[in-house]
Amino acid sequence: MPTAALLIIGNEILSGRTQDTNLNYLGKQFAVMGITFKEARVVQDIEGEIITAVNALRATYDYVFTTGGIGPTHDDITTACIAKAFGLNVVKDAEAFRRLEKHYAGTTQPFNEARQKMAYIPEGATLIDNPISAAPGFQIGNVYVMAGVPVIMKAMFDFIRPTLKEGAPMLSSAITTTLTEGTIATALGDIQTRHTAVEIGSYPHIRDGKLGVCLVVRGIAEPEIEAAAKDIRALIRAQGGAIVTE
Amino acid sequence: MPTAALLIIGNEILSGRTQDTNLNYLGKQFAVMGITFKEARVVQDIEGEIITAVNALRATYDYVFTTGGIGPTHDDITTACIAKAFGLNVVKDAEAFRRLEKHYAGTTQPFNEARQKMAYIPEGATLIDNPISAAPGFQIGNVYVMAGVPVIMKAMFDFIRPTLKEGAPMLSSAITTTLTEGTIATALGDIQTRHTAVEIGSYPHIRDGKLGVCLVVRGIAEPEIEAAAKDIRALIRAQGGAIVTE
Repeated sequence: MPTAALLIIGNEILSGRTQDTNLNYLGKQFAVMGITFKEARVVQDIEGEIITAVNALRATYDYVFTTGGIGPTHDDITTACIAKAFGLNVVKDAEAFRRLEKHYAGTTQPFNEARQKMAYIPEGATLIDNPISAAPGFQIGNVYVMAGVPVIMKAMFDFIRPTLKEGAPMLSSAITTTLTEGTIATALGDIQTRHTAVEIGSYPHIRDGKLGVCLVVRGIAEPEIEAAAKDIRALIRAQGGAIVTE
Repeated sequence: MPTAALLIIGNEILSGRTQDTNLNYLGKQFAVMGITFKEARVVQDIEGEIITAVNALRATYDYVFTTGGIGPTHDDITTACIAKAFGLNVVKDAEAFRRLEKHYAGTTQPFNEARQKMAYIPEGATLIDNPISAAPGFQIGNVYVMAGVPVIMKAMFDFIRPTLKEGAPMLSSAITTTLTEGTIATALGDIQTRHTAVEIGSYPHIRDGKLGVCLVVRGIAEPEIEAAAKDIRALIRAQGGAIVTE
């Protein structure tokens, strides 16, 4: 299975101003595509931190996706940092320039110097289409640089998706019960030991002030998942628990 | 200013099953406390990955917080991993055992072997109170190990908070406009250059299909923030833009 990492670039995530949702979205996409999502990092808008993180991740995983920092303002430093990480110059891309010029010609906004900055990408990088606001992302090596605004990020990922190697889709079955983890933990561990082809996750929650747990069986083969899920349902019934429909 | 990092441990975050909200919550707390939130990482429930990440982060930042993986089930491996990262044994903590025993005595649930597992912490670690479900977190060195369930994580952080060194609280002023980034980018960069004591972030969004931007001035001194905010408001007016009240 191909592996992937996400690098979220932006002070606004770490300051708590913005709740990131891109990681969750990409996690779901990777699962369907059979790409193993190994790691995510969030770093500040600081050149050294971005370069260190992207170099660590691209040396470790098949694919690295970044979000944020490719706009026209002074705090948008991602493009320059990715170029430095690869030891490349940032150059004007004629096609990106053309797209932006055309986009702004259809608006009341001038295609000024700040907006022209968005046509600059690392030398040799490939454009990632942006059907929402024209300013492209780019791919260089195994690194895919995307916008941070979720609707634009999603559109860019739709463009990238067909170019990615996929693995066996990760399937799952979720069983929620009002029993608590401690009641079933030992027997659940035994079920995991018997069903090595699947991964069983136990995720507690508090609803209406009461602890409960959602048990998730993940794997690539439906029969193996269902066999483990069947054992989990039997365990819950044996302990007198209820299975909650969600 | 003290520095902090967060290590989020859990397959459920990377699979997209669970939307993390702890990072956002802690980001807001750190800002108020004057602790610089430098980095966050999300890793899978895999021993080697957890150990590598916690060792990298604790060597780099003043404080490292972890969330997730301290329950009674087979996939709760955080305690064992943190102990290994520090080269310590996991031992039964008499006080944690007493608290859990007392907690379960007040319920219909047995204090069974799986639940007793939650009384084991790395040798020499200090307990972090859990007023919600009794099972404690722990602190070892500069690493604070907390539960992943948000309401428990928040209660644990409330316990930890008075023990942390604080810096000057990070204050901010946010100005939202219907102008787009490209219109103001160059002048905004000039404002940032003139106001070196503050950090100006430009965060675009799409609302009702239209691009807009929120400009956030952050710093530790109100007059410096207000001076930069005043320049930004003047810039927006000069460009014929509207300031949106939020």
